Parts: sequence; C-alpha cells; structure tokens
Amino acid sequence: MTLSPRRIALAVIALWAAIASIGCATTDPLPSWNQTDAKRAILDFVEQAADPLSDGYIAPEERIATFDNDGTLWPERPLIQGLFVLARLEEMAMRDPSLRQRQPFKAALDRDLSYLHEQGEEAILKLVAATHADMSQEEFEAFLPVFFEQANHPTLKAPITSLAYKPMVELLDFLRENGFEVYICSGGGADFVRAISERMYGVDPSNVIGSTLTYAQRDVAGRSMLWRTAELGTFNDKAVKPASIHEHIGKRPAFAAGNVRSGGDIEMLRYSQGRMGPSMQLLINHDDAGREFEYVEDDNASLGQAKQNDWIIVSMQHDWRRIFSEPTTHNTGRDEE
Amino acid sequence: MTLSPRRIALAVIALWAAIASIGCATTDPLPSWNQTDAKRAILDFVEQAADPLSDGYIAPEERIATFDNDGTLWPERPLIQGLFVLARLEEMAMRDPSLRQRQPFKAALDRDLSYLHEQGEEAILKLVAATHADMSQEEFEAFLPVFFEQANHPTLKAPITSLAYKPMVELLDFLRENGFEVYICSGGGADFVRAISERMYGVDPSNVIGSTLTYAQRDVAGRSMLWRTAELGTFNDKAVKPASIHEHIGKRPAFAAGNVRSGGDIEMLRYSQGRMGPSMQLLINHDDAGREFEYVEDDNASLGQAKQNDWIIVSMQHDWRRIFSEPTTHNTGRDEE
Repeated sequence: MTLSPRRIALAVIALWAAIASIGCATTDPLPSWNQTDAKRAILDFVEQAADPLSDGYIAPEERIATFDNDGTLWPERPLIQGLFVLARLEEMAMRDPSLRQRQPFKAALDRDLSYLHEQGEEAILKLVAATHADMSQEEFEAFLPVFFEQANHPTLKAPITSLAYKPMVELLDFLRENGFEVYICSGGGADFVRAISERMYGVDPSNVIGSTLTYAQRDVAGRSMLWRTAELGTFNDKAVKPASIHEHIGKRPAFAAGNVRSGGDIEMLRYSQGRMGPSMQLLINHDDAGREFEYVEDDNASLGQAKQNDWIIVSMQHDWRRIFSEPTTHNTGRDEE
Repeated sequence: MTLSPRRIALAVIALWAAIASIGCATTDPLPSWNQTDAKRAILDFVEQAADPLSDGYIAPEERIATFDNDGTLWPERPLIQGLFVLARLEEMAMRDPSLRQRQPFKAALDRDLSYLHEQGEEAILKLVAATHADMSQEEFEAFLPVFFEQANHPTLKAPITSLAYKPMVELLDFLRENGFEVYICSGGGADFVRAISERMYGVDPSNVIGSTLTYAQRDVAGRSMLWRTAELGTFNDKAVKPASIHEHIGKRPAFAAGNVRSGGDIEMLRYSQGRMGPSMQLLINHDDAGREFEYVEDDNASLGQAKQNDWIIVSMQHDWRRIFSEPTTHNTGRDEE
C-alpha cells in the first residue's frame, strides 16, 4: 500500500459529510413528494432497512433496488427509444433517399402509425435492426450522445435529458444514501439506457439491465470488436425481468419499482416480494394529464396485482408535488402515442 | 438526510485507514509473488492506473478487471464443478439406485472417463441437466454450501475452499485498493461460482459472470420463483466472454487475467487489449507439477497469442513464491484429469 493523497482526501470528505449530516438532520430526503401515505411508507421502509435494531433491517449486501425505466423514471409517451429510431432513419434517408419509398421505413418516416400497428412486431424489428444492428458496438455508441444532445419531447417541448421524474431521482439518491445498490431493469435497450444512466439517474452503466441484441466477436484491423447482429438476444419484459435480474445480480431485489401500462413490471415486483425478509414494491400510476400523461391498462392487471399484493400505488397527480426539475406543459394538450 | 452513526463510523474508518497507510507505505501488496518482471509490471501498471499524474492513469469508472476462475483463481484439475456433479450423482443414486445402471450416470459414478470422452458433449450436458436443472433456484442454491463445506481435492488432499491461489487473491485485493472493480468471468456456472466468490475472493455475487441455464418464472404456492430449465443459456467461453462482459458491465476491462489450457481466455484478453487507453493482460501458465499441476495446450494458442500481443505470462513455478495459503502436496504425484 502506498501513501495516498486520494485516501486522505476521501477521509476528509467522509468526515465532512458526517459533520454536515448533523446540521441537516431534519432535511426532507424526498422534497418533491407530497406528504401522503406513499411517501410515509417509503421513508419508513428505507429507514428501517438501514437500522440494525429494526425488524425491517436488511443486511447491506441484500439492499438491492431495481427500477423499470420507461414510465417509471422518465416518460414513455412516446417511447424515447422510438424517437431515436426515427432520428436515425431521418439521417439514413438523407444518405439513401430510396428508404422513403420502402416499407416499413416509409411508414416510420411518414409517421404512418396505422401501417406499423397493422404490420406489428415484424415491422418494428426491421426498424430496430436497421437502426441498431449490423455495426460495431463503438459505432453504435457514438450515435447516442449526439441524439441525447439534440432530442426534445414532441409534446412536453423539453430536452429529453431534462425529463427524469424528479421524485424518482430523489428516491434513487435516498436509497443509495441508505446503502442500497440501485439498478435499472428496463424493457428498453441496455446500451441505449446506459448512455444516460449516470447523467440522469446517477446509475453506473454496469448497473443497467435491459434488452439486448446478440453480439458477435469480430476483428477490425487486428482489434477485437463486438459486432451488433440483427438477432434479438433478450427482450427484457414481463417474466424475463426476474431471470435477467438473477443473471445480472444473483439476488432478489428488496425494493422494486415499475409502472402501469402493459403489465410489463408485474413479474419483477412479484419476484421482489417473494424474497425472504422485508421488501417493498412501488407501482407508478399515470393519472396526471395536465403535467404528464393519463393512461390505463385495458385489463387493469398491474393495479389489480398491486391491490391484491399490497404494493404501494403512486399517483403522479396526488403523490408528487412536482414531476420534472423544470415545469413543462403540453404543447398540444393531446397525448401522443 | 438523517443523523447517521453509520456515516460517522465510515468517516472514522476512512480517516484511520488514511493514517494507517502512512505507516504501511513500504508494505509489499503482493508478498506471495517473487521479485520478477511479472510482479514489477503489475505493480507499475496498477500504481500508474491510480495516479492522475501518470500517463498510465485510468479514470476510476474505467478501472474494470475481469478474471477467469478455473485455472486462474483456483485449480482446474479436475474441474471443481465436476466434483460437484459427482457428489450430486452419489446422493441421487442413494435415493434411486437404478441410476447406477443407466448411462451416462453409470459411467460418471464408476469414473469411466473413456466412456464419457467417447460420448462427448451430449453425455456431459445430460449429467449437468440431471444435477443442475429441473428445480427451483432456491433448491439448487441450498446444495452448494453443503458441497463446499465437505469437498476435498482428490490429489491435493485439501478442502476446496482452501485452494484459492494466494498470489491471485493478493492481486484482487491490490486492484480493489487502487479503485478497480473486480469481476469474475468464468466458463463455470455463474450460480456455482457465486456460492464462494465472496468467501474465497472477496467478490460480491453480483460481480460474477458465468455460464447459465435458461430460467423460467414459476409460481410455487403463490410465490414467484425462478425455475432452472435443462436448456443451456450461455456457455461463457472463448468469443462469448467479450459479449457477456459487455452485457454485464458495458465497458471493456482495463485488466484481464486468464490461463493456458484450452484457449478459452484468448478472446477476453484480446477484448481487454482493444480498449482505448492503458490496459494489462495476464496469462497464467501451469508449469509447476510439484506444487500444483503442469499442462500445456496442444496448439499452444494461448502462449502464442501472449507472446505476439505482449501479455504478461505468469509462470506459477517461477513467479509465485507460494501457491496456496497452506502448503499442499500431491497425494498421488500423478495429475488426474
């Protein structure tokens, strides 16, 4: 071990933080949440998890939290990765105008949603393959900062990178301050989410679990590269989420959060609840047409499971004092899918 | 933020560590390594990686290290997961003696290696499925501590849990002390290695990447469980290792270590070397028949790549002062495969 200025600096910082925390003992860790049952339940659970004398104590290595992304940490109307597909297609069509005449690219570029709905999954996979695959990992990663630098939400009229839900960012911080290791477990592409996970959520890319393509190893000019093939690896949704959480972490999450839309998070929340010992599950309900969006599930499956299993249902309208860092309003007043 | 005794305790510990490090400035972090070029190269690389003023500096979030397990962190003659398969089969045969008459179980129980070699991969997969699959994840995990509590190495005549290579455990600690995040990337089963990764290597189970079966979600008495199916998920070897490292971590390792035997680590080491910026690759050569084992590759591929690409070749005989925490000697003097 060498004499390390970094080590001394760390100690000074930690000591300063300890002293500072005495002065801030009454600071609210979740200021963007209203004083409702949901907030009280979260504060209770997390403080007990970190308190060795509490019945709700959880050993530090078991303090695992997993969060869905689309609709849980940022808006999903429209899917932001869908905006990326469109942005890529526009660029590709500038180089190759024939794309504008060929399906399913024509439909996507013309925003012809009825055609895409009609053609279903096959058309979507073709669009994803054309924009995400058949290139090196490095080439793909180079597109992402450019996209996130420029992308705006079509109705909220704000930069995508400003649209993390503020109450959830506070919750991620609060969990980490209390010794939780926070992961994102998204149906979106792992590589896509990794490009903004640190910046928007303070989550290291290695803590992002998501959908994947299949990677092949290739040599390019003698250098070992990962090649993104057009073959889907994992579509990280529904019952796949518990399996991918196990593969990635090897432990059941003690805290899991998802949202109402497609039932995509039910199995992750049930898996968390099935752990031996204390756990908490959060389900975000999009019921705020004025500040964000309002939508329901046809079969009401997520809310039904939440009520049956005593999950915390978070009403964006009632439980959140504010939704984004900066106030936004819909430009059209009409939800766009 | 609440007033936290844990926070104060952390500060005191960090300060104590900083002060203590002044006193230990000359302590050798790798005492089980001889004073050879390999050791000097490792010390140089790691110290530069942590030094912001050095050309070899690596940003903290890029200090990723990946280690193969079998033959790199513990012996692979015989494969320890193979010993687990045999132990499980013995237990199963006590309950169901007909196994002793049915292939490939009979051959395994009779240690009839020629039959198993002849039948090849199909027989091996049948043995793995019978001992690792068609049960819940919890049931499988319950077998592992029992096995590791009892298992001994057949020729080294020592508990398996005492057979971590001491020089490598020191290296893992040294890397972590210098801000590296250490992962295991094994061809063995991820769940198998996770059972001992913390205890033997100080590696949290979430930092273990390995081979997997395919998991299904099942309800057992209303509780969400992962079910281990007999279908192979990933065989984490050769060119699969870079892909699984990317899926798990999302970054290229700046430090990677593997060993000579089957060429299984070549692609991981090449992937590490392909990162932009400083990196180091280590290849362990098993050339110590007296203290461990001596074996070579038929095609010499790993050593050939090491020489061509300037990887550090570690001679167990010459570079390691000792191999295990406690001295061991072969009981038979003959290598067993």
